[in-house]
Amino acid sequence: MLINMSEACEFLKECEDTVVLIHQSPDGDCTGAGIAVREILHAMGKRCRIECSDIIPKRYDFLTSVTGSGINDEFEPKTIIAVDVADPQLLGSLREKYDGKVQLCIDHHVSNVEYAAKTLLYPDASATCEIIYNMAKELGFKLSDHIATCIYTGIATDTGCFKYENTSAQCHEIVAELMKSHKLKYAKINREMFDVKSPGRIKMESTVMELMEFYYGNKLTMICVTADIMQKMGVDSNDLEGCASLPLQVEGAEVGIMIKEREKDVYKISMRSANDVNVSKICQTLGGGGHVKASGCLLKGSLDDVKKELIAAVGKAIEA
Amino acid sequence: MLINMSEACEFLKECEDTVVLIHQSPDGDCTGAGIAVREILHAMGKRCRIECSDIIPKRYDFLTSVTGSGINDEFEPKTIIAVDVADPQLLGSLREKYDGKVQLCIDHHVSNVEYAAKTLLYPDASATCEIIYNMAKELGFKLSDHIATCIYTGIATDTGCFKYENTSAQCHEIVAELMKSHKLKYAKINREMFDVKSPGRIKMESTVMELMEFYYGNKLTMICVTADIMQKMGVDSNDLEGCASLPLQVEGAEVGIMIKEREKDVYKISMRSANDVNVSKICQTLGGGGHVKASGCLLKGSLDDVKKELIAAVGKAIEA
Repeated sequence: MLINMSEACEFLKECEDTVVLIHQSPDGDCTGAGIAVREILHAMGKRCRIECSDIIPKRYDFLTSVTGSGINDEFEPKTIIAVDVADPQLLGSLREKYDGKVQLCIDHHVSNVEYAAKTLLYPDASATCEIIYNMAKELGFKLSDHIATCIYTGIATDTGCFKYENTSAQCHEIVAELMKSHKLKYAKINREMFDVKSPGRIKMESTVMELMEFYYGNKLTMICVTADIMQKMGVDSNDLEGCASLPLQVEGAEVGIMIKEREKDVYKISMRSANDVNVSKICQTLGGGGHVKASGCLLKGSLDDVKKELIAAVGKAIEA
Repeated sequence: MLINMSEACEFLKECEDTVVLIHQSPDGDCTGAGIAVREILHAMGKRCRIECSDIIPKRYDFLTSVTGSGINDEFEPKTIIAVDVADPQLLGSLREKYDGKVQLCIDHHVSNVEYAAKTLLYPDASATCEIIYNMAKELGFKLSDHIATCIYTGIATDTGCFKYENTSAQCHEIVAELMKSHKLKYAKINREMFDVKSPGRIKMESTVMELMEFYYGNKLTMICVTADIMQKMGVDSNDLEGCASLPLQVEGAEVGIMIKEREKDVYKISMRSANDVNVSKICQTLGGGGHVKASGCLLKGSLDDVKKELIAAVGKAIEA
């Protein structure tokens, strides 16, 4: 059942002994939103802890490592809240334990499958943290500098630092308000979230970038990482996560493709669109799918045939 | 003489046949601000053209190529305005023609040398475009979508897409206002300003990144590009512009150094700080100087000696 903001606030006021669930492979938005909700409940004198199937990456230590008592309360939960979790599948290893038991889900994904008893959904919000900000306001809750930092980080990371389409006038306004009332180390946060990489990652990206192939006057760019290359680099398929956006770094590229060899004659394809080409449609014709600007599919055959199939399919779309 | 906003607005209302000067190696801020001023003057029925010592790069075509008459008016100028030009030196080849003749300078650089007859200076503004926005408001001028795009681009580029220290609550507020009232293609603009590079640039950066050296547990990162390497890459010193920030991409790096061989035993050093190390102080001890987070110097001697000198100087600062 979809509920509105004031109903969600009533729920928070009345809940007891709450576990806040965030999605697997936690990012800045679910981590920031989860911690903000936990701190709001703590400030109300309630017990609350966060659970996640994966360890929250070290880069979010500045969000997770707050001093104070009762941070990771031990108790038998009476309330289960999920934040930024569009689908129970995204609970990872916690799915079995909590599926069907989520009482409130707070989310901004248009793809939310409404699996919770109550869902507060704002698909126009840039980030779940934007919803939490409005919730705190509705509750009359005075934000601490730390919660402000959580909310800033969620909005900044989900919008690629105010770069992507989902950036709105509203999220710029919220950030202006946060900056006026709080000490935010935004330059340091942004550097750590967007600019720095491990030496290993830098080396890997350099190597991967050198594999770039160009078609249709650079309108299609493609990187193919075979099992052989992965072995030589000493990485596996997981290490290549986040590389799908690399082909689109080329000036003039409309479609960027990353091919990863999964096993002999089986290739995982990630396709990205810079502007108007609908890669979801292209991937659908190849048995896959996804979003308009980010889709994927699995192709079988020799690498040469797979490449030819992709080049032909994208060529039709670019011409159209 | 420093003047205030209403005095600057009076100046604009009364000026005739204006040349707007922007700085050499034009960027998003001076280009956006220059065009915004030109369009405001055009809307007042005045003649105005922009002059720059260098060609405005193709990537700003979406700002410069506006349709309409009188875009590059031909006339004998009666008024000279400089925008975003902190020092007459930055006029490049136009310096000789216009030095001492600038009647109004509109700028946000704290380093402005107040060379103009009248200077409107807001050192707290994130970008000169932020000042132009406030000026248009004071003038009661209704922004077109195109001027809004100019102002957005100036603010976005000068703040690294709202990433750097100079990003303020005020500039987020201005952008929120612009987004509410205008159709801004901000995602497309940001992609073109921040994410894409030419295939040649990508290749060069990959090669340069592979030269990275690490000291003090990655706290100091250093890239040294010798004349020999430049020749092998087929690039010159100018092509390496913008590479000075690359060493700081390494996780944990506090100081990043780029060394470029200028001639035998002469090296141009660019030094960048991620957080608290004052590289201006370090470079001063080496005969150079600059800003707290971005400085430089020229060192003479063998490459080995130059490196040792740099490593020692930075080591002291990191320990302190």
